[in-house]
Amino acid sequence: MADVTAIRIGIIGCADIARKVSRAIQLAPNATLSAVASRTFEKAERFARANGFPPEAKIYGSYEALLDDSEIDAVYLPLPTSLHRTWAVRVAQKKKHLLMEKPVALNVAEFDEIVAACDANGVQIMDGTMWLHHPRTHKMSEFLNNEELFGQLRMVHSCFTFGGDQDFLKNDIRVKPDLDRLGALGDAGWYGIGSILFAAKYELPTTVIAQQGPVFNEAGVLLSCGASLHWDDGKVANFYCSFLSNLTMTVTAIGTTGTLHFADHVIPYEEHEASFTTSVRPRLNDLVTGWESKPSEHTIVTDIPQEAVMVKEFSSLVANIKRNGAKPDQKWPTISRKIQLILDAVTASIEKGFQAVDIVS
Amino acid sequence: MADVTAIRIGIIGCADIARKVSRAIQLAPNATLSAVASRTFEKAERFARANGFPPEAKIYGSYEALLDDSEIDAVYLPLPTSLHRTWAVRVAQKKKHLLMEKPVALNVAEFDEIVAACDANGVQIMDGTMWLHHPRTHKMSEFLNNEELFGQLRMVHSCFTFGGDQDFLKNDIRVKPDLDRLGALGDAGWYGIGSILFAAKYELPTTVIAQQGPVFNEAGVLLSCGASLHWDDGKVANFYCSFLSNLTMTVTAIGTTGTLHFADHVIPYEEHEASFTTSVRPRLNDLVTGWESKPSEHTIVTDIPQEAVMVKEFSSLVANIKRNGAKPDQKWPTISRKIQLILDAVTASIEKGFQAVDIVS
Repeated sequence: MADVTAIRIGIIGCADIARKVSRAIQLAPNATLSAVASRTFEKAERFARANGFPPEAKIYGSYEALLDDSEIDAVYLPLPTSLHRTWAVRVAQKKKHLLMEKPVALNVAEFDEIVAACDANGVQIMDGTMWLHHPRTHKMSEFLNNEELFGQLRMVHSCFTFGGDQDFLKNDIRVKPDLDRLGALGDAGWYGIGSILFAAKYELPTTVIAQQGPVFNEAGVLLSCGASLHWDDGKVANFYCSFLSNLTMTVTAIGTTGTLHFADHVIPYEEHEASFTTSVRPRLNDLVTGWESKPSEHTIVTDIPQEAVMVKEFSSLVANIKRNGAKPDQKWPTISRKIQLILDAVTASIEKGFQAVDIVS
Repeated sequence: MADVTAIRIGIIGCADIARKVSRAIQLAPNATLSAVASRTFEKAERFARANGFPPEAKIYGSYEALLDDSEIDAVYLPLPTSLHRTWAVRVAQKKKHLLMEKPVALNVAEFDEIVAACDANGVQIMDGTMWLHHPRTHKMSEFLNNEELFGQLRMVHSCFTFGGDQDFLKNDIRVKPDLDRLGALGDAGWYGIGSILFAAKYELPTTVIAQQGPVFNEAGVLLSCGASLHWDDGKVANFYCSFLSNLTMTVTAIGTTGTLHFADHVIPYEEHEASFTTSVRPRLNDLVTGWESKPSEHTIVTDIPQEAVMVKEFSSLVANIKRNGAKPDQKWPTISRKIQLILDAVTASIEKGFQAVDIVS
């Protein structure tokens, strides 16, 4: 990866997820792992060593020092959500492109500040939702967009749950009100909402209603919740997210003539390929004792894992700005904002005693 | 099937579903297809001929005539729901055991009248929900009941949808307010609710809330709707049912340590076997780029199709009453009543503008 045209990415913060993204940056053909910063030099150095950083990568004992490095093109920001606004804005002001973890902010207003800073400084912003970049996702999108096969979307159900162990439920940043106060909603729910909007071709719902019975920890952070989304044309969707259930990540989208299903939504079972099933106008036999056809399975191979495809896509957009003077792409932050908008609505609905919340884009 | 110990079943009404059940009665080793009644002799005769009735089967041009036949032990009742109370009570009063189609009644009060008539006359009642009798269902029940594997139930999602064609949406009894005014809720929703209660080991929820956006036809019959169910311990469930979407019948139940999934809930893909998948404490790999194990698939073979297993179970209960003086079994009507109770609650919630409805058993 000593390619001089590669986008030089620095990492600010040594969160667990940064291990996966460090590797992804190394696997992406157009990116270079150039630096890592932590609040102490020792921590950054330990992280770099543990994650196979190239010897020429720089180690910084402060975030600011990395931001001042003119040889860094872009920053990957895996900090807790409560720190996003502050540091994302600083990254933009330093004219560095921004790949940031989700949820992108504590609310849409904060995200709008981040986007404004990126716009003002002409830098790319993309959030770290990996599954959207998997080639499987593009294939599923083709199916959902094929009116002849899928028809019109009527219902989506999405769940992403995992069972946090004692240590997670006590110490993880995702259960701390001062770090990631959106809890399971911001972490797992982000994907549920994202898969629903994906299936709805990013048409925002009209109303969102949180499901009764959310579970909070003692500090008031959501450990599990759900919500339903409603569109004026009668489409409906539900998602459920939890830190308290068995690992499950299932999406079912039903159209008037087709159905899409996949059960390894956020993390594919395997790195090099992923599958989904479709069924199009299946029929039951005459006596209604069996099906004339079963759903068909489609397996999509990828040469690099989805997180590396994400880094590749990000770096490609950055390169186009850097070399060709292109404008930053708007597609990705538009998606991020819509998901955040629904997150906000679910939070508001819970606060209002599960009332319907209108979505105003 | 000339076995003299076999339970002699007569069919009242020539609905489409009666074709499937006629065959099931012939496949069940302990039942005999003894008679069919329609409002005209010709229609009954045509039905018998088209469905391979044995030559000794009797043909009746009125329901009453069949009920007066002392050589009939039990009646299968596939009439429209609005006729259930009247005819089910008459069946019971004639001391005939009752296998009836679902939804069992227009509301719980009606069903209670039917059950009271059956109790007073010492006859068995069972509804025609076939999937509950498949050996796959028993295997799934074992998994759900295994605390070591599944843990405690946290969430269920169930959907059963199919796309009614123009003829169905105009003429089927399930879209007629005077025949089956519960529409998609009574027909497809019955299964969604049933699968949720099955997963919850028939513990009734505390509250039910209909999902906004139900679709009605011009006559006010539900063509699609959904609802969420809530238990005091934090369990939640959702179902969705529709006559306006692609054929889909998926159930996902998530426990604290296990997940169950099957996609051919109501009608197995094939008659002779059916599958489901389970996953127990699956783990992601260290870098969270893949799973260490995939869900495992379990295939259960059945020697006769689920509807024949149902008839066999019904006939076995009837035989036990007839020969051994046993009391009618309470398990099946108890399940039917619970499903009907939730149907009523969903209807009430829709009528009340999607308010929460408390379940009082």
